[in-house]
Amino acid sequence: MSRTLISDCLNKIGQKVTLSGWVSNVRDHGQIAFIDLRDWSGNIQVVTQEKLDLGKEWVVEIEGLVKNRDQKSINSKVALGNIEVETTKITVLNKSETPPFPLDSDGTELEENLRLKYRYLDLRRTRLSDIIKKKHKYILAVRNWMDQNGFTEIITPLLTTSSPEGARDFLVPSRIHKGKFFVLPQAPQQFKQLLMVGGVDRYFQIAPCARDEDPRADRHAGIFYQIDIEISFPTIDILFGVAEKLMQDTVSLIAPQKKIANFPFPRITYTDAINKYGSDKPNISFGLELQDITTLLKNKTDFNVFNNADVIKTIVVTGGGNFTKSQIEKLEELAKEKGAKGLAYTKVISNKLDIGISRFLNPEIQKDIIKNLQAKDGDLLIFVADSLNTANKSLGYVRNYLGNLLKLTDPNLLSFTWITGFPFYELNDQGKLDFGHNPFSMPKGGLASLDSQDPLTIESMQYDLTLNGFELASGSIRNHEPETMVKAFEKVGYGRDEVIKKFGGLYNAFHYGAPPHGGWAIGIDRLLMILLDESNIRDIYAFPLSSNGVDVLMGAPGQVNQQQLDDLGISIVNGKTVQKINK
Amino acid sequence: MSRTLISDCLNKIGQKVTLSGWVSNVRDHGQIAFIDLRDWSGNIQVVTQEKLDLGKEWVVEIEGLVKNRDQKSINSKVALGNIEVETTKITVLNKSETPPFPLDSDGTELEENLRLKYRYLDLRRTRLSDIIKKKHKYILAVRNWMDQNGFTEIITPLLTTSSPEGARDFLVPSRIHKGKFFVLPQAPQQFKQLLMVGGVDRYFQIAPCARDEDPRADRHAGIFYQIDIEISFPTIDILFGVAEKLMQDTVSLIAPQKKIANFPFPRITYTDAINKYGSDKPNISFGLELQDITTLLKNKTDFNVFNNADVIKTIVVTGGGNFTKSQIEKLEELAKEKGAKGLAYTKVISNKLDIGISRFLNPEIQKDIIKNLQAKDGDLLIFVADSLNTANKSLGYVRNYLGNLLKLTDPNLLSFTWITGFPFYELNDQGKLDFGHNPFSMPKGGLASLDSQDPLTIESMQYDLTLNGFELASGSIRNHEPETMVKAFEKVGYGRDEVIKKFGGLYNAFHYGAPPHGGWAIGIDRLLMILLDESNIRDIYAFPLSSNGVDVLMGAPGQVNQQQLDDLGISIVNGKTVQKINK
Repeated sequence: MSRTLISDCLNKIGQKVTLSGWVSNVRDHGQIAFIDLRDWSGNIQVVTQEKLDLGKEWVVEIEGLVKNRDQKSINSKVALGNIEVETTKITVLNKSETPPFPLDSDGTELEENLRLKYRYLDLRRTRLSDIIKKKHKYILAVRNWMDQNGFTEIITPLLTTSSPEGARDFLVPSRIHKGKFFVLPQAPQQFKQLLMVGGVDRYFQIAPCARDEDPRADRHAGIFYQIDIEISFPTIDILFGVAEKLMQDTVSLIAPQKKIANFPFPRITYTDAINKYGSDKPNISFGLELQDITTLLKNKTDFNVFNNADVIKTIVVTGGGNFTKSQIEKLEELAKEKGAKGLAYTKVISNKLDIGISRFLNPEIQKDIIKNLQAKDGDLLIFVADSLNTANKSLGYVRNYLGNLLKLTDPNLLSFTWITGFPFYELNDQGKLDFGHNPFSMPKGGLASLDSQDPLTIESMQYDLTLNGFELASGSIRNHEPETMVKAFEKVGYGRDEVIKKFGGLYNAFHYGAPPHGGWAIGIDRLLMILLDESNIRDIYAFPLSSNGVDVLMGAPGQVNQQQLDDLGISIVNGKTVQKINK
Repeated sequence: MSRTLISDCLNKIGQKVTLSGWVSNVRDHGQIAFIDLRDWSGNIQVVTQEKLDLGKEWVVEIEGLVKNRDQKSINSKVALGNIEVETTKITVLNKSETPPFPLDSDGTELEENLRLKYRYLDLRRTRLSDIIKKKHKYILAVRNWMDQNGFTEIITPLLTTSSPEGARDFLVPSRIHKGKFFVLPQAPQQFKQLLMVGGVDRYFQIAPCARDEDPRADRHAGIFYQIDIEISFPTIDILFGVAEKLMQDTVSLIAPQKKIANFPFPRITYTDAINKYGSDKPNISFGLELQDITTLLKNKTDFNVFNNADVIKTIVVTGGGNFTKSQIEKLEELAKEKGAKGLAYTKVISNKLDIGISRFLNPEIQKDIIKNLQAKDGDLLIFVADSLNTANKSLGYVRNYLGNLLKLTDPNLLSFTWITGFPFYELNDQGKLDFGHNPFSMPKGGLASLDSQDPLTIESMQYDLTLNGFELASGSIRNHEPETMVKAFEKVGYGRDEVIKKFGGLYNAFHYGAPPHGGWAIGIDRLLMILLDESNIRDIYAFPLSSNGVDVLMGAPGQVNQQQLDDLGISIVNGKTVQKINK
C-alpha cells in the first residue's frame, strides 16, 4: 500500500494507511503503548498493543487504521489531536543511537556548535523545519511575484572578478590559468548593470553574495542571499513602488500576524534620520526623538560640559521619571560605548527640573527647556553634549535601547522606512575623500555637480530601506555615463586607467547605448529573521557556518593535499607570523 | 507620461504613448524616416518627419501616437507589423558607439570570443534574449511544479568540503583558518542526503555545481546548474514518476512543438543499452541496432579478422546500399576513432551480398546472414570484429553518426529513456576495482551482496535518464546504512578510518535514524539546449565562461595583489615549470 503523509490522515478517518517516519516518543502503558510518530508533514499518535522494542528517532513503517479518538482523549492543542492510528503492523526500517540532545524544544537552550555538529538531528525540531518550509514558500512567492510584475530571473556568474562592495573577496585559484584567481561575487552589481545595457528591462535574482568578513551577528558568515533587482528607465517612484508592493503582497504569506505600519513606506532623509534618530537605519515606529537644544543651553549656564560642546542634544524619555540611578547609569554606559564622554540627565517633577544637572539650570532656563521640549511631569531628560556626530550616534544608540526597554516597539508591526539623500562622498578615517556608499550610484546632478560642487555636499541617488531598525535593502539610480563614472572615481584618487582596469567591462559597456537604470537588493535572511521572530541568523539556513565561520558538521574548511596545491600552482605560507595567527 | 512597453502598443491603438528603447535601424526616406525601435518586449516601427541624428543602438525616448498601418504597409511577418508609432517627440537618452558586429542575425556566424567580449551587445539579439526569457520561465515552472508536488527548495552551502563526484574541486582558501580550504560543491549530494536524515520528505534545489574540469562542449566550464531532488521512503516508480511527470508537465511550456516519444519513459538495462546501441546513453528513437553475429561468422570463413576476434557485431544500414566508397570510409574512420582496427562492410544486392567482404562469404553463409538479420536489397551491412567492448563502442559511435546522416532523428521528438542496472563496481584503467558510478548508491542486495557476490557482478541501484542520446539525469536509491557504506568503500581500498575522515558527516548521520532515500539530478543546461534547439551550451548562460574557461568580458581569472595572498596565507608557486604552463 502506498505511503500516506501524516497530515493526510485527517482525510483518511476509518481507512487503512501506511505511514513512514520517526519515533518522537514512546509511552508504554503495559497492555497498550502510544507512539508519537513524526514525518515532514506532522505528528500523530499511534496506538499499539504489540510489545515493542523501539527507541527515540528510530525509523519505522506503520500500517494501521485511522480512527477518531475517544472524546476524553482528544488533545485540542495539537494539529491531529482528534485522531490516532491503531496499528496492525510495525516495521523498523532503521535504528538510531540515542540523540545527544532532545528534539522537542526549540533548541535555543543548547550550545550552538553541538546543534550544528548534529544539524541533521537539529533540523528535525519543529522550529527549524518550520523555518525551512516558510523560507521555501516565501522565496517562491517572491519569484512568482517578480515574474508576474515583468521581471526575468537571470543567473549571473559565481566565478568572476573583484567588485568594490567594500568587503574582502573570496578567491578561487585558477588551475588552467595558474597564478590567476577567480573571485566569488560580493554581489551581482556589475552583471546586473551589464544586463541593463544588454536590453533586459527588469532583472531579478535570488543571488548568493560572498563576503570574506569576520562573522557578524546579523550576517551569515561567508555567503548570504539577497533579492536582487534592477530596472531600466526607472524613476524613484517605480523602484520604491516595486519594493513596497512586493513586501505588501508577500510578507503576510508567512507572517499573517504582522501588519505593515505605513503604506506607502515613509521616506526620510539621511540628515533627518541622523539628527532625529541618531541612526541611518532608525526605527521610526516609536518616538523618543533626538532634539537639539544647543541654543537653549550653550553658554547659558555654568556647566562647562555644555559650554565646551559643539552641540547639546536631548531625548525626552516619557515616563522615565521613575528610572533608578542604576538604570540611568546603564544609559550612560551605552552612550559612552559610542564615544560620548558622559550622559547628563534630569527629571521633570512638579513642572520643574530636579536631580541630576538641574542644579546648573536656573528656573528660567528650566522653564524654557520644559516648554521647548514639551516635557511633562514624570519625564526623564537625558543629554549628550559633544560633537554633532558623537551626540547623534550615542543618543541614537541609547534611544534604541530605550525603545526595547520601554516596549515601545510592537513585534507585529512592520515599520518600513526609506532613507534618501545619502552623501555621495564622505571623509574616511584617514580624513581622505571616499565614497559614502555605492560607487556605482549616480551623484545627484550628474557630471555637472561633480565638476562644480564641494564633493562633501553632493547627494547620492542612493536609498536604503529599513525595517524595524534594521537595514533591509540598499539601492540606487546608477551612474550609466562613462565620463561621470571616471570623474566620480577620480575624486577619490582613481585614475582613468585604474577605473578602466578595474571596471573595464562596465566602462566599455557604457559606450554602447547604456540605458538609465537602477535597482536594489533586499537581504533575505534579515527579512526572514524579522518575519519569523528569529534572533539567530544562522537558523535561517539549513546548514549554516558557525559563529566562527566553520562548518562543524562537514569539517570545512579542511586540509587539502599537495597534489591539489600543485595543480593550482599555489603553496601555503608557513612563515612564523602566519603560524601564530593560526592558533 | 509613464512608459509603455512596445508589446503593449497593440492595446493602445489610437492612444499617445511614451516608449523607451534602442534604435535597431533607421531608414531615411527624405521627408520621412522610419526607426526600428526595440525594447525587451518587442520591436515596433516608428515614423517621424523630424530630421534626425540617430545611430544604431542609441537609447531614445519616443512620444507618439499608436496607429494602424496603411493596408499596403502591413508586414505580417513580424509581431507588431500592423501598427506603427507616429512621433511627436524624440529624446536621445544616450548615444552608442558603432557596435562591433550586427545584432540582427542569430550571431552564430561570429567569432565566439568577440561576442563574449561584448556580451552586453550580444544579449540584445533576439535569439539570446529569447533563451534568457525561456530559461527563466522554465526554471520558474519547475519550481512551482516541485512545490505543488510536495517538494521544498532548500539552499545548501556553497562553501563546503570535498565530495567524490569524480571531478577536480575548486578550492577557496580560508582567511580565518589559514592553510585550510573550503571547496565549492561539485553537487549537493551529501547535503541532500543529510536533509533526508534531517526529516525532510521531498527536497529540491536548482543547484549550482562547481567542477574544475577542462572545458567540454556539453558542459559549461566551472559552474553548471541542475534540478536536484531527493525523496525519503522512495520506490523506483516514485522516483521515475516524478521525473516523468515533471518533464511531461513542463517541457511544452517553452517547446510546444516538441512531443514526448513514449510515456512513461521506456526503461532499458545498461547491458542492453551497450549491446544494442553501443552506448550507455543511447538514442533509441531510431533503429540501426547492433547485432551479434559471432556464431554465424566466426571460424566459418577464411577471413582471419573475423576468426581472431572475440565478437563480430554488425549494423544493418537500411537504405545504405547507395553509400559511396568515401561515405563508407568515413564510417570506418569513426569506428577507428573509438578503437576499432577496421570496419568491414558489404551490401545486399538481389538478395545476395556483394562488394566489400562478400568474397569471403560463401552463398550459404550469405543466405544465413541475410535471413538472420532480415536484411533487404539496398541495405548496407557494416561489421566490427574485436573485443566486445570495442565492437560496441565503435559501432555505437557509427550508429549515432548514421542516425544524423540518414535523418532518422526527429528534432521535435523527445525520446526519454531510463537506463538501469549499472554495475556497482568496474575495473579502472589500472585494472583496479573502482566505483562504476555514484559511490553513494545502494548496491543491489545491500550488505549481503557485498559480502557474498563477485563485486563485478553486483548491480547498483543507480539509473540514468537519457534524452535523444544525451545523458540528462543521473540518480539512485542511496546507501543509507553505515556498515554497507563502509563495506562498499572498503572494496575499492578505503579503510573505515578513511571513510569516516572523508565522509564523517554522512557516516555519523547514518547512525541516527536515516530513512531510506533516493533521488536524481537533471542537467538544466543540456535540457534547455535540446528544448531550444541550441547547439552551444554557453549560449544558455547570460554570461558564460569561454571555451577556454575565462571570462573575456570581465577579465576573470585575474591578478590579485600581494596583500590578498598574505591575508590568505598562500603564495603563488613561481617555479619554472609553472611559469612555462602559464604561457
